[in-house]
Amino acid sequence: LDYQHVQVPFEITLWIMLASLAKIGFHLYNKLPSVVPESCLLIFVGLIMGGIIYGLNDKSPPVMDSDIFFLYLLPPIVLDAGYFMPSRPFFENIGTILLYAVVGTIWNVFGIGFSLYGICQVKAFRLQDVSLLHNLLFGSLIAAVDPVAVLAVFEEIHVNEKLHILVFGESLLNDAVTVVLYKLFRSFCEMPAIKSVDVFVGVGKFFVVGLGGVLVGLTFGLTAAFTTRFTKDIRVIEPLFVFLYSYLSYLTAEMFHLSGIVAIIACAMGMKRYVEANISLKSHTTVKYFMKMWSSVSDTLIFIFLGVSTIGENHEWNWPYICFTVIFCLVWRALGVLVLTFFVNRFHVNTITSKDQFIIAYGGLRGAICFSLVFLLPDFHRKKLFIAATTVVILFTVFIQGMTIRPLVDLLAVKRERESAPTVGEQIHIRFLDHLLAGIEDISGHWGQYYWKDKLEYFNSKYLQKILLREYDQPKSSIVLLYEKLERKHAIELAEAGQLGHAPSHPSLLRSGFLCSNNNRTAITDKKLEDTLNPDVLENIQEILARNLYRIRRTGPAYNRHTLPGEAEPVEHAKEILILRHKSL
Amino acid sequence: LDYQHVQVPFEITLWIMLASLAKIGFHLYNKLPSVVPESCLLIFVGLIMGGIIYGLNDKSPPVMDSDIFFLYLLPPIVLDAGYFMPSRPFFENIGTILLYAVVGTIWNVFGIGFSLYGICQVKAFRLQDVSLLHNLLFGSLIAAVDPVAVLAVFEEIHVNEKLHILVFGESLLNDAVTVVLYKLFRSFCEMPAIKSVDVFVGVGKFFVVGLGGVLVGLTFGLTAAFTTRFTKDIRVIEPLFVFLYSYLSYLTAEMFHLSGIVAIIACAMGMKRYVEANISLKSHTTVKYFMKMWSSVSDTLIFIFLGVSTIGENHEWNWPYICFTVIFCLVWRALGVLVLTFFVNRFHVNTITSKDQFIIAYGGLRGAICFSLVFLLPDFHRKKLFIAATTVVILFTVFIQGMTIRPLVDLLAVKRERESAPTVGEQIHIRFLDHLLAGIEDISGHWGQYYWKDKLEYFNSKYLQKILLREYDQPKSSIVLLYEKLERKHAIELAEAGQLGHAPSHPSLLRSGFLCSNNNRTAITDKKLEDTLNPDVLENIQEILARNLYRIRRTGPAYNRHTLPGEAEPVEHAKEILILRHKSL
Repeated sequence: LDYQHVQVPFEITLWIMLASLAKIGFHLYNKLPSVVPESCLLIFVGLIMGGIIYGLNDKSPPVMDSDIFFLYLLPPIVLDAGYFMPSRPFFENIGTILLYAVVGTIWNVFGIGFSLYGICQVKAFRLQDVSLLHNLLFGSLIAAVDPVAVLAVFEEIHVNEKLHILVFGESLLNDAVTVVLYKLFRSFCEMPAIKSVDVFVGVGKFFVVGLGGVLVGLTFGLTAAFTTRFTKDIRVIEPLFVFLYSYLSYLTAEMFHLSGIVAIIACAMGMKRYVEANISLKSHTTVKYFMKMWSSVSDTLIFIFLGVSTIGENHEWNWPYICFTVIFCLVWRALGVLVLTFFVNRFHVNTITSKDQFIIAYGGLRGAICFSLVFLLPDFHRKKLFIAATTVVILFTVFIQGMTIRPLVDLLAVKRERESAPTVGEQIHIRFLDHLLAGIEDISGHWGQYYWKDKLEYFNSKYLQKILLREYDQPKSSIVLLYEKLERKHAIELAEAGQLGHAPSHPSLLRSGFLCSNNNRTAITDKKLEDTLNPDVLENIQEILARNLYRIRRTGPAYNRHTLPGEAEPVEHAKEILILRHKSL
Repeated sequence: LDYQHVQVPFEITLWIMLASLAKIGFHLYNKLPSVVPESCLLIFVGLIMGGIIYGLNDKSPPVMDSDIFFLYLLPPIVLDAGYFMPSRPFFENIGTILLYAVVGTIWNVFGIGFSLYGICQVKAFRLQDVSLLHNLLFGSLIAAVDPVAVLAVFEEIHVNEKLHILVFGESLLNDAVTVVLYKLFRSFCEMPAIKSVDVFVGVGKFFVVGLGGVLVGLTFGLTAAFTTRFTKDIRVIEPLFVFLYSYLSYLTAEMFHLSGIVAIIACAMGMKRYVEANISLKSHTTVKYFMKMWSSVSDTLIFIFLGVSTIGENHEWNWPYICFTVIFCLVWRALGVLVLTFFVNRFHVNTITSKDQFIIAYGGLRGAICFSLVFLLPDFHRKKLFIAATTVVILFTVFIQGMTIRPLVDLLAVKRERESAPTVGEQIHIRFLDHLLAGIEDISGHWGQYYWKDKLEYFNSKYLQKILLREYDQPKSSIVLLYEKLERKHAIELAEAGQLGHAPSHPSLLRSGFLCSNNNRTAITDKKLEDTLNPDVLENIQEILARNLYRIRRTGPAYNRHTLPGEAEPVEHAKEILILRHKSL
């Protein structure tokens, strides 16, 4: 027996296997995941595992290594989040998200830090040796909402798109702020004296870390898109580039002390539309599926390790400090959301309701990022107290808030996600309104979001697409392309359900030469409608849409992180098609 | 700048990126890969890289770590080979393959070892300090044909299926023999005296190592199949199990000093049909694609590292020893193939022609396995000579033999792979003959391959399928199921080419209730034909087959390791369908 030789890969494989089997186990009993969030169950499994290891070895089980977490477990989850980010609601609410992420996080850091320092001044609590700087450092790591925890809970409760993107976007983008504040306070802790210039440098760093991350990410993303231009003869390694470039963007950003999370999100969002157009459909299925799979496994491992790491002798218990930490986390977040939303609502027509505000405040879950940061702290005599407080906050938010948020959403009747995706009609109208608003903004000289969006689209179709797409020909009409895309999506869904045999035949399509000339997949570009609709194309479109209107009702299911579109089997739908065909014959 | 922190993943990602970009580079110029095998080009890139590193650092570039090779680079390639192994020709020729792999390898090891020892006795060559045992040890590592190198070359020359499986199967299964002989001679080298009992133990080990590997592999494979029974609600982690279980089988086998390669192949072949039936189509696409991608990357990395490792100061040059090694490798392999084939041909009707024998002998390429084994040798004063000889043999076989084998195959007019897969008619006849032969063998009391195959099929459908498949219902008729499978395959191909709109409609299929009732994917089982064909089913089948006969012409393209079936776009075919439909209307 030669265990040493295979130990590293063997143990990694076994951990992943345990995580996957645990996941299967939960889903065998359908009732369990509908009451308790999966993250709680996984932490629970981790606690049991940790208890067993502790019991057998009589020493603390290994804690999750911060390096492993930041270098290997976090990137897949963030990549998945960025790649499948619904870009429209994200960019529509980018201002609000940034406000929450930057100002909100700073508010929380200083609020929690200063009020905990106040608690430390109470003599009865015996905490007078914890300095203000240490409290602020602790505040900086405990204040940040965790994207992994937020995703794990919010994907199961299906709140409306705007609310989801506000909480989720904040949790992703506050990474830049957290990185800066954490490193700033950590270096302050080690400095003999702090000059005022250091504070100003710190403020300047916000912009460097955040914008630098975006820059690194976009550079790698566009390079990835450019690379996939040349993979036509070697389809099999196409999916690799998506993963390699986004991982490189993360590592490069981390290397320069920029925000890796921001970089990988910028990379994923930047490359998505071009890569999707360049690579084959099968490669794209592989990319999507593998991303989901990988993030799902990382996610599972993180929560299990969180449970395992909780058990042990790393903790120093101090009731007042720990209790007040939990209370301050809740109170300062609630206050921050209230104040910030007050300002946001003054400048927006579409305001954030008080119910939504409550869910935003309540959904501020903490997770593995805090946990890893607290272990990365330099050694000092109260580190174990900080570890204990962090663990309690994480367990409190994940268990208590995570488990009660679903009943609360039901109780408050928070506006839910719409069941179906927008119809083609709606999509066309939305696009039309976008162009209209861009025109109005242009005339009135107001540089609003529609103006910039329109300019970006123009730049994209004029330059970027020509460089980054393999087969770039000016699309005939965006409606036809949209129709083709839906048609293709539908075809794949039908084929997967083994229903192809019953699909209607459309020799007319072939005759009119629409689909035939467009075997290669081209991205849908938001070209202005009016400049492409010549009469005969329009006539054809009308014919096609009239013939196939039944299809429009069936579009993809709502966004959910753990499923991919098109898993349901459209048996009912196939029957409907059949009836329609019989009538037409 | 904090490079230390991200060094490991960053450098790994960069190497993979380099490998992938090199691959894209070759394929941009279509002429290059058609003349020079990719493996040669990659080694060449590696040599240049190694030269640059050597030039810049003025010290030897890092050699490929044997642990990394055996634990991380080799398994994906072998898994891919096992999973996509054409099982029928493999099992039909299993006797011949085993003869080549076991007896042939032993023959080569002792042939090369003893004759090199003879060379060492020539005083002029100054090699008298190389003992017989060291020569045999060297023989044991240089004799084994390398699956990675063989695959890389043979997938490009498309020889007939039997010839391909003979060379490729041998290269995979000789691992068991190589492992045993290599470890045996290595331990003999360190022993003060060798007893005859040690030699007998060594012979016994063959069976333990080989059969143990098969056992470990099958155990994990069937467990994997069983696990995928329960993944219906959590499709997203399905592909993971295929990779986890096969990797575990490899590691477990290595841990117990069994043959990891044999284990992973048994695992992949064992689980394939059950996993395929249990998991969703998208998951299966992901599994297939990812396996191809992974093995392709591993393969590329291995050849690049082979090139890089060649440069440096690890070599001791001795003209006679190195030249005679190359010559003996060629001569003993040729002799071995001739002698073994003589015996094989006496017992087979379907003989191996002399052209085929030449290609088998000439296709005995050496590769990275030899290279890793020679670096694993215990330190002794002539190790650098062995490294030099191994490097030369590898470069000679990969460059000279690899580049000339394609012209030779053309020149000798070796029987090629058939262009198209067998038609449905052929498949039905083959299956019918199988049953017939099984019956004849049963009556005559001869326990031949057909008898065992039949028994195994019976055992499979009676017990294994019930345990391992999720939705197991006794299939109605294997012809209908085969038709459905082809239909489904075709549907996916059509949908991928964006041609679904023109697919013919088959309301009759829906009406007859054939496909409708069978949305779930069931494996095709070779149930005997005669016991299921009741008249109305038969009538329906005839109708279906008559209507769709044009499809039969189009079946999947021939097996090729770097492409997946269904990448070609069936535009021509869609037109044909259209014409047929017009006629029928």
